[in-house]
Amino acid sequence: MNQPAPTTDPESRLLALGLSLPVAPKPVAAYIPTRRAGDLLFVSGQIPLVPGPDGSPTLLFKGAVPDEVSMEQAQECARRCVLNGLAAMKAAVGSLACLRQVVRVGVFVCSRPGFFDQPKVANAASELLMEVFGDAGRHARAAVGSIALPLGAPVEIEFIVEIDPACDP
Amino acid sequence: MNQPAPTTDPESRLLALGLSLPVAPKPVAAYIPTRRAGDLLFVSGQIPLVPGPDGSPTLLFKGAVPDEVSMEQAQECARRCVLNGLAAMKAAVGSLACLRQVVRVGVFVCSRPGFFDQPKVANAASELLMEVFGDAGRHARAAVGSIALPLGAPVEIEFIVEIDPACDP
Amino acid sequence: MNQPAPTTDPESRLLALGLSLPVAPKPVAAYIPTRRAGDLLFVSGQIPLVPGPDGSPTLLFKGAVPDEVSMEQAQECARRCVLNGLAAMKAAVGSLACLRQVVRVGVFVCSRPGFFDQPKVANAASELLMEVFGDAGRHARAAVGSIALPLGAPVEIEFIVEIDPACDP
Repeated sequence: MNQPAPTTDPESRLLALGLSLPVAPKPVAAYIPTRRAGDLLFVSGQIPLVPGPDGSPTLLFKGAVPDEVSMEQAQECARRCVLNGLAAMKAAVGSLACLRQVVRVGVFVCSRPGFFDQPKVANAASELLMEVFGDAGRHARAAVGSIALPLGAPVEIEFIVEIDPACDP
Repeated sequence: MNQPAPTTDPESRLLALGLSLPVAPKPVAAYIPTRRAGDLLFVSGQIPLVPGPDGSPTLLFKGAVPDEVSMEQAQECARRCVLNGLAAMKAAVGSLACLRQVVRVGVFVCSRPGFFDQPKVANAASELLMEVFGDAGRHARAAVGSIALPLGAPVEIEFIVEIDPACDP
Repeated sequence: MNQPAPTTDPESRLLALGLSLPVAPKPVAAYIPTRRAGDLLFVSGQIPLVPGPDGSPTLLFKGAVPDEVSMEQAQECARRCVLNGLAAMKAAVGSLACLRQVVRVGVFVCSRPGFFDQPKVANAASELLMEVFGDAGRHARAAVGSIALPLGAPVEIEFIVEIDPACDP
C-alpha cells in the first residue's frame, strides 16, 4: 500500500494515487446523499455506479461474490463505492480537507452462501480511505454478507465521518 | 406525493394524510425502543406489526419479496415501520414537533436472490417521512436485502433522528 | 437473569457473572476496533472469536442458524461477541466504568431462509449488557438475518456506546 506523505491534503493524495473524484452520483431514490447532525456527517449507502457509455450511471459489475463477481472485481467495486462516497462528502462540506476523521464504515457484500471473505472485499475500501486520509482515515467497521443489493450491486458501503468544526460555513 | 403545507406540525400532517400514530409497539425482545445520546435519538429496528384480531401485535404481511410479498405489500410494510417508529419517537420525546431532522434510515428488505428493488421498497418509507416532516424528513439512507428478518417480517427499518434541544425536559 | 447490584462497577459484575474480559481480538482486516467521535464510541463488528488450541483466534462455532449452529450455540456466540466488544471498549477508554450508556447494538445472525428468531439470538447479547451495566446497558437495537458472515461466523455484533466525558484523558 503506497501511503502518500501525511502532509498533503486528501484530494492531492487521491491524485497521487491516480484517482480522481467522480461527479457525486444522484441517489437511486427518495433520499439525500448526506445528512449532517452536529459534527457527524452520515453518508447514504453507495453502490459502484460509474458513468455508462451513454453517460447515465451503470454498475461496474453486477451479481454475487464469488460466483458472478470475482474477489478482484468486488474489491474494485468497494473502491468505487469509496470514491462515490467521497464525492458525496465533498459536495456536502466543500472540501475533503474538512473531514476530521472517518468514524464508521458499513460494508454489505452480495454473497453466495459459504462465501466468508467479506472482510477481504471491505479491506479494499478501508485501505483506500487510509491512503487518502492517513491515520484520520482509520475507522470502525462492520462487514457482512447480503442476499441481494440494490440494482444487483455486488457491494454497498455507507459512511459516518466527522467534520472539522473549523470548516463550518 | 401529496406534500402538506410546511407550516403545519408533523402530527397534523399525518392526520391530513389520513394516517394516525399507532400505539408504540413493545420491543420483540430484551431491548428498548429508543435510546438518546446527546441530540441524537436512536430508534430500534421496526417491523410492520399491527394490532391483530385479538389485539395482540401481528405482522401486516410475512415473507420475502417478491415471491411471497408483492412490491405494493412491501411498500405498505415500509410505511407501517415508519408509523411504528414515529410512535416510538413520540413516546420518547413527547411530540413529533421535537424532531429537528431525520438523520439516517436503515432499511432491510427480506429478499429472494435476484430481487434488486430494495430502493423502491425503501422509498415508501422515505416519502412518508418527507410528507410528515417536509425538508426535515430528508435523510441519508442505506437499503439492503436480507435473507430473513425477525418473525418473518418482509421489512425492518431503524432510524436515527436529531432532537431539538429546545424540547429538553 | 441474575441482575447484580447496581452499585458494583461493570467489571465486578462481569466477575460476579463468572465471566472475564478476553484480550481484545485484533481486527480481521484493515480497520481499527473502535473510533471515538465526541462522546460516542463506535465499536467494529465483533465475531465470536476465542483463543484456539494454539492460541490463535478461532470461531466458537461456524455456520448458519439453525441448521449448522443451534439456538443455544448462537446465543453463546452472541455473548462472546459482547465480551469481545467490551474488551475493545476497555482498551479504548481505560475502564468499562467510563461507559455512560450503551446506545445502539446491531446484530447480524447468519440465517437459513425461514429462520425468524434473530431477536432470540440477539437477546443473549442484550441481556448480558444489562447484567453488566444495569439500566445503562439498555439500548436501541436492530437484529437481522445475513446470508453469510466473515470467516463463517454465526453472529456479528457492532456497538455504539456513550462515554462519560469525566473520563476524558
